[in-house]
Amino acid sequence: MGASPDRAAALARDAADPLAAAREQFVIADDALIYMDGNSLGRLPRATVPHLHHVVEEAWGAQLIRGWGTGWYEAPQRIGDRLGTLLGAAAGQVLMCDSTSVNLFKVLMAALALRPGRHTIVSDVLNFPSDLYLAQGCAALLGGQHRLRLVPSHDTLTVGADDIAAALDDDTAVVMLTHVAFKSGAIHDMAAITAAAHAVGALVIWDLSHSAGVLPLALDACNVDFAVGCSYKYLNGGPGAPGYLYVNAAWHEQAVSPIWGWFGQHQPFGFALDYTPAAGIARFLAGTPPILALAAIEPAVEQLAGIGIAAIRAKSMALTGFMIELFDALLAPVGYTLGSPRDVAQLGGHVSVRHPAGYQINQALIERLDVIPDFREPDNIRLGMSPLTTRFVDVWEAADRLRRAVVDGHYQAFAAQRRAVT
Amino acid sequence: MGASPDRAAALARDAADPLAAAREQFVIADDALIYMDGNSLGRLPRATVPHLHHVVEEAWGAQLIRGWGTGWYEAPQRIGDRLGTLLGAAAGQVLMCDSTSVNLFKVLMAALALRPGRHTIVSDVLNFPSDLYLAQGCAALLGGQHRLRLVPSHDTLTVGADDIAAALDDDTAVVMLTHVAFKSGAIHDMAAITAAAHAVGALVIWDLSHSAGVLPLALDACNVDFAVGCSYKYLNGGPGAPGYLYVNAAWHEQAVSPIWGWFGQHQPFGFALDYTPAAGIARFLAGTPPILALAAIEPAVEQLAGIGIAAIRAKSMALTGFMIELFDALLAPVGYTLGSPRDVAQLGGHVSVRHPAGYQINQALIERLDVIPDFREPDNIRLGMSPLTTRFVDVWEAADRLRRAVVDGHYQAFAAQRRAVT
Repeated sequence: MGASPDRAAALARDAADPLAAAREQFVIADDALIYMDGNSLGRLPRATVPHLHHVVEEAWGAQLIRGWGTGWYEAPQRIGDRLGTLLGAAAGQVLMCDSTSVNLFKVLMAALALRPGRHTIVSDVLNFPSDLYLAQGCAALLGGQHRLRLVPSHDTLTVGADDIAAALDDDTAVVMLTHVAFKSGAIHDMAAITAAAHAVGALVIWDLSHSAGVLPLALDACNVDFAVGCSYKYLNGGPGAPGYLYVNAAWHEQAVSPIWGWFGQHQPFGFALDYTPAAGIARFLAGTPPILALAAIEPAVEQLAGIGIAAIRAKSMALTGFMIELFDALLAPVGYTLGSPRDVAQLGGHVSVRHPAGYQINQALIERLDVIPDFREPDNIRLGMSPLTTRFVDVWEAADRLRRAVVDGHYQAFAAQRRAVT
Repeated sequence: MGASPDRAAALARDAADPLAAAREQFVIADDALIYMDGNSLGRLPRATVPHLHHVVEEAWGAQLIRGWGTGWYEAPQRIGDRLGTLLGAAAGQVLMCDSTSVNLFKVLMAALALRPGRHTIVSDVLNFPSDLYLAQGCAALLGGQHRLRLVPSHDTLTVGADDIAAALDDDTAVVMLTHVAFKSGAIHDMAAITAAAHAVGALVIWDLSHSAGVLPLALDACNVDFAVGCSYKYLNGGPGAPGYLYVNAAWHEQAVSPIWGWFGQHQPFGFALDYTPAAGIARFLAGTPPILALAAIEPAVEQLAGIGIAAIRAKSMALTGFMIELFDALLAPVGYTLGSPRDVAQLGGHVSVRHPAGYQINQALIERLDVIPDFREPDNIRLGMSPLTTRFVDVWEAADRLRRAVVDGHYQAFAAQRRAVT
């Protein structure tokens, strides 16, 4: 290990960064704030403001119902197709609609129906708990014959593809995993696990919430069956932005959404009394698309697709690599442990650092040190780096303030102050 | 019948209207346009523009993840409670979330689970078809033992409470109806039908999409079990605005949503691996609430709640009554028939008029006569009157232009023009 990189070294990296100018395309209300939580809520793209203004004041306010003729009907598919370019999905397979939870419910129920007689859903203990809740709910709904099998982790950071594969058998209906783990940022091997699932006759569902917009995906090439995700993280769609779903074209004729709403009907405005699913991906729509929320995400997806995911991934790996370098130099010596894989090729867009006083440190960073990370039980401080807005100097400042929070007594002072007022 | 009311008579009614000033609280981009489709998409309240701007640029753009501390978590319940004042629902029973379709799915599945051993869902042929699709989907999901029984209509306008009651028996699990019919505007007798359902041991679900914000409701007083609705009609929430759901407090312990997402979990940020439903109405949440869409609806609900539903209903009945008066004077003589009940006490916020050339007339109104109604197969022209924005002179102009579309040959000319270009 060489000398600890100093702030000037970070600034030099920023000066050499080909994506540095992308930050100017975002609203930065407080340039001094070190925002390390774009993996929870991405920043507001500047282009979103006038576009949303236009859709609200012109398309809705002035065009009124005629707004539906300005591209609203097609929005879930249009934005889905554009997002598909970031997911490795050919057109006609992605919809931007509903929440991630509702979309996972739809594709999981559809997948289970495609594998009658099989009763095991395989996931892992590092999956985002909401996904596990959804699976538990589907199992309950189907009468209690299904079970959710969770593959354990040996190191709390990751679960190996081999361990997943070893858990599969001819009762496995669906393998349902989050591609990038929400705590550690570890990346699952999508190609290997998908192939292993298919080898036993099971289907796969990938949750891409921590993947889309920060690293390349190859859903079609991996022959993925279904995928879902949220758009408020690296996709910068805003708080509670719509989710999305992917259904491989190979399943469009057979897969049926469990929620039979009018926008999934083959002729929504025919008003026939009986449901006939639409052809193609549209059958996975349910109710009226959320036009204002879709208006907020569309410029963000357009921006990412325009920049291209290869350049974004290169910047992302440089950021996470710099953070791990700083971890070794600044944080390990003061009692932090790494909560993420060391190899940036195995890592999504965030790095977790762990400390027994993680919660107090996280609060001290927010309230005294002008850094916003986030905290995940029991001791993970997540440091999210958004390739389009996080600077290398932000990474340096975050690491330095994490160090200072311990050595300068900030977190202890914060904790004492809290005790005094509560 | 007296003399036909003329335009001056309409203007006099506007001058005497205690709610006339409410129109100024909305964006009116084109004062000459006669907009009769607020029952499909309500107008944009002026207050929505700065509020949405604030939530986007300040709360998201500047506060970033800290925005969640500015009331976002509570938004589905907070807006739901305020909406509840328009629905006759005490606090803690209404959520603004998801789409109407997804909400209907949730409460219908929950209701069916509360009535095991019963296999009939009763609805009527005048229900909005999407609601019937949802029920068909739920029946399919539950293995095909359930059936949807549709009570017919004798007059295509309405289905009597007695006819509904006669269709119920001890196999009826759920009675699922739309309170105000989407074509005719006829109002179901919520109290009588709910009582009849309960008398046979069934539960009720009311779809309030064409009711909320235009007429008083008494969900608690009627002992309604579940209700859902959309907020883009009289609630003025914008295109594809979130739906809402009501679950009577009596069911909060027993009813379980079929979609087990993290916002319905008792501790969403505890990240336990097993689902435990939240206490109260929150268990009917699924994914992350759509904050921007909720920001767009909140000022609109606030505005309606502030004005009060009694005054709104009085204006609504005056508008529909005026339209029926004008129908008799101007439209019946030129070949229109009434597609709605004549008694405004039996009518929601819109009046349907029917004509064999309804589709062509509707298109001529939009493209040549500066009127926007909407058309529903086979021959219904729906004339929606929004109590806060529709003037009596708009009603007069709409009726007069409907008359002129026939007698001045507009629709024939429009149809000929269309034939020439296609």
